[in-house]
Amino acid sequence: MVPQTKMSRNKSKSSIKERKGKVLTSLEELGGQVYKQIVDHEFPTFRMPSRSIANILYDDKTRQYILGKRSVKRSARNVAHIRPFTQLLWTAMFADELTSQNKTSTLRDVFYSAQAYEMDFRDQAESDNLITDLETVTSFSREDFNVYPEERSAIFGDLTVEYTVPGYEGKRLNLSSHPDGVMIGPALTTAEFVQHDKKKVDKIIAIEKGGLFTRFIEERVHQKYRAVLIHTAGQAPRATRFLLRRLNQELDVPVYIFTDGDPWGMHIAMVIISGSANAAHLRDLNTPDAIWGGVWATDIVDYKLPSDPLTDLDLKRLNELEKDPRYAGDLWKREIDTFRKVKKKSEQEAFSRYGLTYIVDKYLPAKLKLKSN
Amino acid sequence: MVPQTKMSRNKSKSSIKERKGKVLTSLEELGGQVYKQIVDHEFPTFRMPSRSIANILYDDKTRQYILGKRSVKRSARNVAHIRPFTQLLWTAMFADELTSQNKTSTLRDVFYSAQAYEMDFRDQAESDNLITDLETVTSFSREDFNVYPEERSAIFGDLTVEYTVPGYEGKRLNLSSHPDGVMIGPALTTAEFVQHDKKKVDKIIAIEKGGLFTRFIEERVHQKYRAVLIHTAGQAPRATRFLLRRLNQELDVPVYIFTDGDPWGMHIAMVIISGSANAAHLRDLNTPDAIWGGVWATDIVDYKLPSDPLTDLDLKRLNELEKDPRYAGDLWKREIDTFRKVKKKSEQEAFSRYGLTYIVDKYLPAKLKLKSN
Repeated sequence: MVPQTKMSRNKSKSSIKERKGKVLTSLEELGGQVYKQIVDHEFPTFRMPSRSIANILYDDKTRQYILGKRSVKRSARNVAHIRPFTQLLWTAMFADELTSQNKTSTLRDVFYSAQAYEMDFRDQAESDNLITDLETVTSFSREDFNVYPEERSAIFGDLTVEYTVPGYEGKRLNLSSHPDGVMIGPALTTAEFVQHDKKKVDKIIAIEKGGLFTRFIEERVHQKYRAVLIHTAGQAPRATRFLLRRLNQELDVPVYIFTDGDPWGMHIAMVIISGSANAAHLRDLNTPDAIWGGVWATDIVDYKLPSDPLTDLDLKRLNELEKDPRYAGDLWKREIDTFRKVKKKSEQEAFSRYGLTYIVDKYLPAKLKLKSN
Repeated sequence: MVPQTKMSRNKSKSSIKERKGKVLTSLEELGGQVYKQIVDHEFPTFRMPSRSIANILYDDKTRQYILGKRSVKRSARNVAHIRPFTQLLWTAMFADELTSQNKTSTLRDVFYSAQAYEMDFRDQAESDNLITDLETVTSFSREDFNVYPEERSAIFGDLTVEYTVPGYEGKRLNLSSHPDGVMIGPALTTAEFVQHDKKKVDKIIAIEKGGLFTRFIEERVHQKYRAVLIHTAGQAPRATRFLLRRLNQELDVPVYIFTDGDPWGMHIAMVIISGSANAAHLRDLNTPDAIWGGVWATDIVDYKLPSDPLTDLDLKRLNELEKDPRYAGDLWKREIDTFRKVKKKSEQEAFSRYGLTYIVDKYLPAKLKLKSN
């Protein structure tokens, strides 16, 4: 409906306030379209791209899943459509309330809130699905409508942000103010980056494990390597993936990803780089040029890391990843092959075998020389 | 060995620096004792309370599990003891290194670090067990030795802390500086509370769910109800339970706990209040006077909350809790009975059925009138 997707893809410096205006406009346009159809004595109708598996395609150019040309129609003329049609309009109305009143919510909250409006959802799966419909119709993600997940990751580094959330407008915080890191929630996700000094921050490092995030802060990785550190806490939540993309584009600095050396860690990196099939209807969530720094299967060999044998589940996962078009690149093929050959996995903490600071003093500088994957 | 336990139990205002001194002293005393025995031409030996189930007793007075009088002896004279004896001394040495060098670590890290010293642990379960032995011998918890878990919870409120970690000594942060909350990691756990104003903070509210923590911040619960908010992120990590106790004792303010209305939520509150059987060898981790504010089973009835049926697993859990001596109090018996009768559970988000702010405007003030459980 709104050509937001293309715009923000081409536009490297996006203002959060501008984005919020576009989110509200997209909701108004959806409502306006339905309203106009009613005034014109037409049965209100809208179309959106189909999210059926057959319509999820991998796009080699943007290196991510996108939706194809098939679309689905929801019309108030069709009795079978009236339920999802009404549910979508309620969801859009509730999203508009949240966004314009600056209140955040969770998927679970949306499900219960519907009951306050006597809107009928059989279960949360149904209301979750309608939120995804709204994402598909508007091309904005649910976080843009202030629907956030429970999971929180964290950030730390010498970068100053300026908040846009109510009560904090114009207030600033340097992200190195709290040496345990600060949470990436609605306020940080919608903060503007101000006072960025490339002499202080010229890269972003995303880390899977909390223990290592803390180690990096203690060992002053942010100063030694001029990095903003992000703790993904396992698979990075969408708000964190959105933030990584913004940091990459708005600060114009590379993003490095460090995960455990196993198929699951590899995939944490991949989802940051190429997004997920579940989010094929969305843009702005992935960082195509982010670099997976390790732990690679070849690192397990090269650094003689303590390791555990790959389990049957790990090997099954490798088979799946091998068939996944996101893994077509040379690095990924080589690492999948190496995992298969050595049949071993190693965690990030395995470097402690050489002392607690080895990973910071030796491994990290070697990996930060990578220019791409 | 060191009469730390009793001291800090009686002492409401404990200084973090003082505590760190005691931790190092306890390690020196352990080493000194072994050294003296060797100099005296004795086989070095030490004793610690047994952690076998038969020796874990519930103490009605302190309302927590403690260890009984049985003890185990580890002697270098006994060939079967040499392995765990040596492992304990290495663990103490490594803990001393971490603590005196202000480096933090994880249980996983300890396991891998041992390999740097050619210290043999079969697997992580063995090294974890030795860390627990060291806790038992010294009465200090592993967080006191800078061994932290991966999990992080968060804190927010108008309270200023002063850090004691390297690079941040003397630096201060007001905990309302970041409206998503700041992480509770090693730096916050060891920070001193300064500039506490009872007109600004006269209670602590611990919340299970992240969505509700964010809602509370947005709705200015910290100002309206003069509260410091803590997000436990499910079962509160030990560092967070230690922090809750410190806030309760050092600021002399009550702690309220809000969880989901199910057996698991009830137990999250209970572990904050009465600790866990696994930590029977430790003190300073529970807050006996903390108040479970809800969601109670009786709230599900009184507030006509949307609910889900209790599963077989939930009912099995209720049977376990009923036999648990920590649940002997009237409130707990009544709530277990009510869960059984109504056979329903409700999440914190269920209050959204009455609008997003109902929980803050109506439910919370009613519950904050509670003086005890």
